[in-house]
Amino acid sequence: MNLVRTLGLLAIATTLAAPALAQFRKPEDAVKYRQSVMYTMGNHFYGRLGPMANGRVPFDAKSAAENADVVMMLSRLPWVGFGAETNGIGKTSAKPAVWADAAKFKDLGEKMQAEVVKLQAATRTGDPEALKTAYRSTSNACKACHDDFTNQ
Amino acid sequence: MNLVRTLGLLAIATTLAAPALAQFRKPEDAVKYRQSVMYTMGNHFYGRLGPMANGRVPFDAKSAAENADVVMMLSRLPWVGFGAETNGIGKTSAKPAVWADAAKFKDLGEKMQAEVVKLQAATRTGDPEALKTAYRSTSNACKACHDDFTNQ
Repeated sequence: MNLVRTLGLLAIATTLAAPALAQFRKPEDAVKYRQSVMYTMGNHFYGRLGPMANGRVPFDAKSAAENADVVMMLSRLPWVGFGAETNGIGKTSAKPAVWADAAKFKDLGEKMQAEVVKLQAATRTGDPEALKTAYRSTSNACKACHDDFTNQ
Repeated sequence: MNLVRTLGLLAIATTLAAPALAQFRKPEDAVKYRQSVMYTMGNHFYGRLGPMANGRVPFDAKSAAENADVVMMLSRLPWVGFGAETNGIGKTSAKPAVWADAAKFKDLGEKMQAEVVKLQAATRTGDPEALKTAYRSTSNACKACHDDFTNQ
């Protein structure tokens, strides 16, 4: 594809894009972004907090707090990567329901974020049981959304 | 198997892994992790702060601070994904020099993180010029490391 045509398509994409897409050059980038955020968040949640919450590694208040902080920040980010123009784009496990039932998707996303707020607070109590409870609730909130809105 | 259950099992597998790999089930996961972190960081740095620092979008102190906070947190994370066992693993642009000249790699990584600390501070001044200066220094620090240690 020649440069002018590429720029032309970019201009069209820009015109059609919602303001939220300003962060991305093209829809594929939005897909890669949301997947990168989710993967990183999953690593810190399931990979780092999980073993601690489940008692398989010793509770470490500092590590728990640090990992919860990462999860907290990342939990706010992926949503901008789910613009309507990304429906069906790329290698994705996101179902069309993300866009067809956007209100429910938004609601479940917000419920997850609310659980992460509690998770972060739990890591400040120094109480392994508080972490365990908050971890389980957060995990359930992740699962509720993934069950309905992804093929994974 | 749904994603959440898979990740749950991964969390169990993590327990069995060597300490350096504790966060990851296998070297490929470490590669994917560091790439996910870098991609997300790049989006917030080049994609969000860049246009503001370069005057292509109006300076917005709140947005600048939020994006710098994301960059700050992410700047601490990718290093654990560069364990020796990941040398040559996966589709990567990391050169063998990452491991052959680990001291320099560490040094340049720390210089980048130090610039990000200044970048974050700059976003609190409310001064677009301060952001511009800190953005340029940080960008140079990114480039210095990428020039030596990646094929990109």
